[in-house]
Amino acid sequence: MRPSSSSSESSSEGLFDGVLSRGGVRETVDDRAWLRAMLDVEAAIARAESRAGLVSAEVAEAIVRACDADAFDVAAIGSAAADGGNPVIPLVRELTKAVGGEAARHVHQGATSQDVLDTAAMLVVRRALEPLLADLAAAADASAGLADAHRATLIAGRTLLQHALPTTFGLKAAGWMDMLDRARDRLARARSESLAVQFGGAAGTLASLGGDGVSVVALLAEDLGLAAPDIPWHTDRTRIADVAASLGAAAGVAGKIAGDVVLLAQTEVGEVREGTPGRGGSSTMPQKNNPIAAVSAVACARQAPGLVATLLASMQQEHERAAGAWHAEWRPFSELLRSTGSAAAWLRDCLEHLEVFAARMRANLDLTGGMLMAERVSGALAPALGRLAAHETVEAAAAKAFAEGRSFEDVLGSTPEVIDHLDAGRIASLLDPAGYLGSAEAFVDLALKRHTERGAP
Amino acid sequence: MRPSSSSSESSSEGLFDGVLSRGGVRETVDDRAWLRAMLDVEAAIARAESRAGLVSAEVAEAIVRACDADAFDVAAIGSAAADGGNPVIPLVRELTKAVGGEAARHVHQGATSQDVLDTAAMLVVRRALEPLLADLAAAADASAGLADAHRATLIAGRTLLQHALPTTFGLKAAGWMDMLDRARDRLARARSESLAVQFGGAAGTLASLGGDGVSVVALLAEDLGLAAPDIPWHTDRTRIADVAASLGAAAGVAGKIAGDVVLLAQTEVGEVREGTPGRGGSSTMPQKNNPIAAVSAVACARQAPGLVATLLASMQQEHERAAGAWHAEWRPFSELLRSTGSAAAWLRDCLEHLEVFAARMRANLDLTGGMLMAERVSGALAPALGRLAAHETVEAAAAKAFAEGRSFEDVLGSTPEVIDHLDAGRIASLLDPAGYLGSAEAFVDLALKRHTERGAP
Amino acid sequence: MRPSSSSSESSSEGLFDGVLSRGGVRETVDDRAWLRAMLDVEAAIARAESRAGLVSAEVAEAIVRACDADAFDVAAIGSAAADGGNPVIPLVRELTKAVGGEAARHVHQGATSQDVLDTAAMLVVRRALEPLLADLAAAADASAGLADAHRATLIAGRTLLQHALPTTFGLKAAGWMDMLDRARDRLARARSESLAVQFGGAAGTLASLGGDGVSVVALLAEDLGLAAPDIPWHTDRTRIADVAASLGAAAGVAGKIAGDVVLLAQTEVGEVREGTPGRGGSSTMPQKNNPIAAVSAVACARQAPGLVATLLASMQQEHERAAGAWHAEWRPFSELLRSTGSAAAWLRDCLEHLEVFAARMRANLDLTGGMLMAERVSGALAPALGRLAAHETVEAAAAKAFAEGRSFEDVLGSTPEVIDHLDAGRIASLLDPAGYLGSAEAFVDLALKRHTERGAP
Amino acid sequence: MRPSSSSSESSSEGLFDGVLSRGGVRETVDDRAWLRAMLDVEAAIARAESRAGLVSAEVAEAIVRACDADAFDVAAIGSAAADGGNPVIPLVRELTKAVGGEAARHVHQGATSQDVLDTAAMLVVRRALEPLLADLAAAADASAGLADAHRATLIAGRTLLQHALPTTFGLKAAGWMDMLDRARDRLARARSESLAVQFGGAAGTLASLGGDGVSVVALLAEDLGLAAPDIPWHTDRTRIADVAASLGAAAGVAGKIAGDVVLLAQTEVGEVREGTPGRGGSSTMPQKNNPIAAVSAVACARQAPGLVATLLASMQQEHERAAGAWHAEWRPFSELLRSTGSAAAWLRDCLEHLEVFAARMRANLDLTGGMLMAERVSGALAPALGRLAAHETVEAAAAKAFAEGRSFEDVLGSTPEVIDHLDAGRIASLLDPAGYLGSAEAFVDLALKRHTERGAP
Repeated sequence: MRPSSSSSESSSEGLFDGVLSRGGVRETVDDRAWLRAMLDVEAAIARAESRAGLVSAEVAEAIVRACDADAFDVAAIGSAAADGGNPVIPLVRELTKAVGGEAARHVHQGATSQDVLDTAAMLVVRRALEPLLADLAAAADASAGLADAHRATLIAGRTLLQHALPTTFGLKAAGWMDMLDRARDRLARARSESLAVQFGGAAGTLASLGGDGVSVVALLAEDLGLAAPDIPWHTDRTRIADVAASLGAAAGVAGKIAGDVVLLAQTEVGEVREGTPGRGGSSTMPQKNNPIAAVSAVACARQAPGLVATLLASMQQEHERAAGAWHAEWRPFSELLRSTGSAAAWLRDCLEHLEVFAARMRANLDLTGGMLMAERVSGALAPALGRLAAHETVEAAAAKAFAEGRSFEDVLGSTPEVIDHLDAGRIASLLDPAGYLGSAEAFVDLALKRHTERGAP
Repeated sequence: MRPSSSSSESSSEGLFDGVLSRGGVRETVDDRAWLRAMLDVEAAIARAESRAGLVSAEVAEAIVRACDADAFDVAAIGSAAADGGNPVIPLVRELTKAVGGEAARHVHQGATSQDVLDTAAMLVVRRALEPLLADLAAAADASAGLADAHRATLIAGRTLLQHALPTTFGLKAAGWMDMLDRARDRLARARSESLAVQFGGAAGTLASLGGDGVSVVALLAEDLGLAAPDIPWHTDRTRIADVAASLGAAAGVAGKIAGDVVLLAQTEVGEVREGTPGRGGSSTMPQKNNPIAAVSAVACARQAPGLVATLLASMQQEHERAAGAWHAEWRPFSELLRSTGSAAAWLRDCLEHLEVFAARMRANLDLTGGMLMAERVSGALAPALGRLAAHETVEAAAAKAFAEGRSFEDVLGSTPEVIDHLDAGRIASLLDPAGYLGSAEAFVDLALKRHTERGAP
Repeated sequence: MRPSSSSSESSSEGLFDGVLSRGGVRETVDDRAWLRAMLDVEAAIARAESRAGLVSAEVAEAIVRACDADAFDVAAIGSAAADGGNPVIPLVRELTKAVGGEAARHVHQGATSQDVLDTAAMLVVRRALEPLLADLAAAADASAGLADAHRATLIAGRTLLQHALPTTFGLKAAGWMDMLDRARDRLARARSESLAVQFGGAAGTLASLGGDGVSVVALLAEDLGLAAPDIPWHTDRTRIADVAASLGAAAGVAGKIAGDVVLLAQTEVGEVREGTPGRGGSSTMPQKNNPIAAVSAVACARQAPGLVATLLASMQQEHERAAGAWHAEWRPFSELLRSTGSAAAWLRDCLEHLEVFAARMRANLDLTGGMLMAERVSGALAPALGRLAAHETVEAAAAKAFAEGRSFEDVLGSTPEVIDHLDAGRIASLLDPAGYLGSAEAFVDLALKRHTERGAP
Repeated sequence: MRPSSSSSESSSEGLFDGVLSRGGVRETVDDRAWLRAMLDVEAAIARAESRAGLVSAEVAEAIVRACDADAFDVAAIGSAAADGGNPVIPLVRELTKAVGGEAARHVHQGATSQDVLDTAAMLVVRRALEPLLADLAAAADASAGLADAHRATLIAGRTLLQHALPTTFGLKAAGWMDMLDRARDRLARARSESLAVQFGGAAGTLASLGGDGVSVVALLAEDLGLAAPDIPWHTDRTRIADVAASLGAAAGVAGKIAGDVVLLAQTEVGEVREGTPGRGGSSTMPQKNNPIAAVSAVACARQAPGLVATLLASMQQEHERAAGAWHAEWRPFSELLRSTGSAAAWLRDCLEHLEVFAARMRANLDLTGGMLMAERVSGALAPALGRLAAHETVEAAAAKAFAEGRSFEDVLGSTPEVIDHLDAGRIASLLDPAGYLGSAEAFVDLALKRHTERGAP
């Protein structure tokens, strides 16, 4: 068993990547993808400068032709990056060689390394957001399906992990859907507003382009489908921060939902199970059915806060180019895209295959013998007993039921202050959780309507 | 010297607050402000339920009348919070007592503690953003003033803290302005889109309001001027994350600009100085003029990334109410508002009083004897010598100037390969940084135009 | 109900402090405590310089006498800190006034503000660690009690929140104890190795003390019971980092254990309950018994990672005094001490009042009808059936039991391949979790022995 | 130019690794190294169980023989990890196949996946610390060399980046040395105290080993040269936290020193330069000499705080195995080792090649015309004029010198109140910074002595 030829230089096939790199996002953020994006930028610069009349069409064509990512050696460029402090320097050197002839001296014209790397980062983000948003949308759709199907499925509402009041699994799933949609909206917004060309040359003046800088920026932006900034943003990292923050929020949402699934899948709770065939088993413990997708989503989501913090801290960039803080962004930015994308992919997988056990939800709800309806019984007794006495009567009944291991209904039915005012049928009806759901269904409807209106990302 | 009576319970007058709590934001996030916001929510619930016909106008009035923050003891409520796990429980107890009579049993009707605290948080954010956005806007205006006044003021463009190419102080200041405006936009956006009422009762169903929940939510939102969510968001923390991320970015921007000021104010650089009278001196070292405002802005800004990380990590909230992660938000959220607001206030102070020494900027630019124009000289020789030979010739001249401590112009003027093609006048002209500014002024114009269009926050 | 006079300037009585500030640590880190520590340092400097012969005994006495924290106004000093950038400057000014006369000019002699604040921080840490270590030790002792009492109490071992194999609650509690002890050890180590005097003057040379600097440092260290560093450490923050990291680890341990309690206390699990009277109830839901102490411990513990990150990021301090990064430490450092101390205090409270329901543990263990003993049954069949066939047979039986809702024992007892080799008694015996505990008790013994040897912190 | 065959699966040859992965640490933490460590653990388990009499020597030998990392496909195992949630599951499957025969069924005997991965992590740490500690030691030695050589080299002491008082470059370098040594000590301590075998089986009881568990743990620890824990530590992450925190502090130290170098190398300061040939140049700006090693060290060091925060937050691990928090450690732990190791390697490179320009240090010191000696002049005048009048006189002279652009000495020499008491020679002598260095040299001596005593890591 030898390493296969497909074990390429990409970091997306490492030992932990089965768990931590998942879904379409992996190929959009690996080293090859970054290299491709950088070359796309170099090609676009050549085209834009040709349209601006700064280089001839032939020169631009020769440069564009050479910007073929497959023709470059990622490892060699990465290694050579050490001497100049970034990978663009050796890439431009190799690209210049590959272009050759007269055109060679127009490679990278007017640009500084950071122009290429920052603009490439924008392209990487845009490409990574495609599968990422698709996975979030699919997870939201799966949640919508659960919300619709289970709008009347009773489940215990749990606060501080204690039964509080009844709710529906539909409302729970609608909440998941809504937060996924909100996370998508934020990311889509960041995509449409924060992705801009970077082009300013060494000091942000585009000095070597004379008076043509502004128009080249506009042409470059048009060519790449990115916004044209009013001013170079080498040390204004608000765009990076905006994307990072939106990713962090999306990861947070994925982690929250996956965490709920893990809790619902506990052996003692057993209300859901991941149904993906062939996953989650144990070679030694045949009874196990681990919620691997949810666990992995949690693992990926947990990477985000620290990475966002690193990126926010890296906003402290000196003067016209930072002495380290810019370089410090590269890895966490890629990693944040990958982790968030992986969390979304795992969550989608989890939700699309989720088995829901409504009977177990109901059985768990009944575990306390109706005790979580105590608030309602108390309310029904209040007009007769007074609010305080009613509360104390019900509280005592609950304590008695707990202490004696009896059903709450049974204790209530043998409490004089209660049966003086409520007959057995009324008690049973008050203890029926299905009658105490308030606006649960209305909320589900509102949320589903909004989800439908939102449409695709 | 005794503690004055004004040393109230507020945490905003602590030992480190002269440095770390600054500007109008402090009073909007202290404990008294939180208490006021909670009572505003309780009052609004009463009014909304009255409009929905759930309680009488008299009951609502009685409750509203009792919601007077000055009548409650912050410390006592804070201390009593320990037993139930949040301050709303003792607050409602005290409020119920204060209301008294029949109306007392309608206090907090249908609500859960988190409804009150989360909605109060939204009010706190809205109130804190007023001074915060005003300070950011003032800092942007001050930057705009500098950008306009110094559009032709030459300064060394510095990359990795080394002289790179000439630029203008105006372009630098325009960059500050633009990133401040972007940070304001993000915060204003978060304000308009992420601030929503929270109202769902214990399990998010508003069960105790029967079928009236949705309409009460709408009335409550209208009353408070907040959005009405489609669904309760107790464990969907995307709103908190959005505000937090926007604050984190604003802090990052403040820190970046303040950091630039600190660097420009270095004894060896001396290009700017904070001119606020009576500040920055030293009792023992009379020569000192510390850039206190910039240093303090940096100190405040540095709080943000860790706080944002805590808030993002706290998105992992279980089921219908988190067992700790919600409670974990309270302090960092307040602290992030305060720190970012303080960074903005310090930065405004710094920029509004910034003294700019254009002559020193020019002198520093000339420190290397024109060496940072080497790129341009090389370009001028290229047609005659060929690109490579031109580069090597100029590089050698630069090295020689450095090694021999001579001016670059002088060395160029005595290098045969140079003077064969460029006369002394041409060399001097090539070494003139004012002629090599590319699009600097155009960028300033674009950015100033955008700033003007943006207007107030 | 008016604010009581005890609502002093201390930040430890804020609205959220019932939950987030707990235990003896609160008073050791509030603003008054910091002020006291700073004055203790000023007094010690006077004494040390007197012993070194630099000032007279009378001068030292006059200064020491004036260093009375109650005589200073925290809020006024905090507020005045804005002009010079730290609170030591106004404190020294006020102290100088209070001393008066000839002695006044020897106040703060040779020191710089950071000397006083950093050394004060060391005193604050030492004082805060007393209650903090005591609470951790008490929590460890409570765990030890549980470990000893429950060394034979069966409980499901849970991996990924799924039943895996049986273990004992004693082993679980011994694990808690051991990690608490390890956290204590680390903190005690940081206390003994990282707390050192800071004394270097403005540039770290103690220039104004002539040749006496080194000996004053030694005398000052002796006076305060702190280590004497070889060299001033103004911008070497390894000491701060060491304390911070040790606190972060202790918070992590507290959060882990509290999290386990929250999970064990879930309504569906019900294996433990917090037994503190009068806490955790709900005014509207009488059935609730929220694990408030555990939840609050989690909330406090979750503050730590972000605060540690801020402190580690603040190690980037420029030259002889940082332009912001030092100031950025003050609040997170206090906050980290308080949060970790509060987590420890809550955890101690939780564990000292923990009610353990062994019968419920056993009932939960039996929930799967012995299925978590599948591994063992498979092992018993392997010699007869071969390993693979044995595994498949048992796996099929487990699946059948799950699908048909039958007990695992029952299915095994009706599976031909099983009963050919194992009779009913042998099956029952194999399914008995008490017989499959491996080294559980041995581990408990080893850990308890180590705990005893460790003794007090 | 095609990808070379050496572009293997290792993540250590990516596009950004020239900057962000440096020194010997890279190969110790890549995927291949992790695989090797896991196999080392599997082999050690076989050997230990053989010594304990649980398997025959032949079986152990067969297993050990198959534990050859080169025989396994990292990418395939990584990819297959998705189904079970960790890479050990597919690794054990492949290893079992590779062993074959009777011995195959003893592979991984008694162990759970986390046993292997956690123990492998300990081996990875130990291996990574070798080059890391060596690089830190070399950086400390280089600093010691600078401290010794420059004990009398005057330099401006800078606080808040302003000239404060004179100091020596030797004292500055001694400070660097001392903090590097402290960071080394902490890491060496973590290595000797926190690296322990993990071996507990699925629930931490080692049930399948019957009563032999404890002795196998001891034998395994002996075999691997790691400590034997009293109790399995699957969800006690204090060991990971201790290593992480020590790495975070080391990164912080590296970043601090590298930051100082960047500041000293500024064009306007010019007191040091990185002398590594062939690095730091610019293809377009021949005058540039970027401090690439220092900048890269800063970039690497900046990764640490966020990674440490992620690891501390991951201490919240549920019951006997975490549902995500354990998996969340893998990547940040590797990344933290790599980043810190790279920061150390870059810093070593920087310091070992640092060119020091003592004349420029002196020239910068003189920039303010002796003004940073004002404190001393004031002290000399105090006996005659009184302290306050002396201070005001000197302050006025400093202000006048600044305002009129004159030398401080010159202004003092024409100020009546001064020359009444100090003649020109005395003024000159007071303004001589060499006479105002206090304990600088004594501190250097103390620190160098300690460095020598510390010896190798």
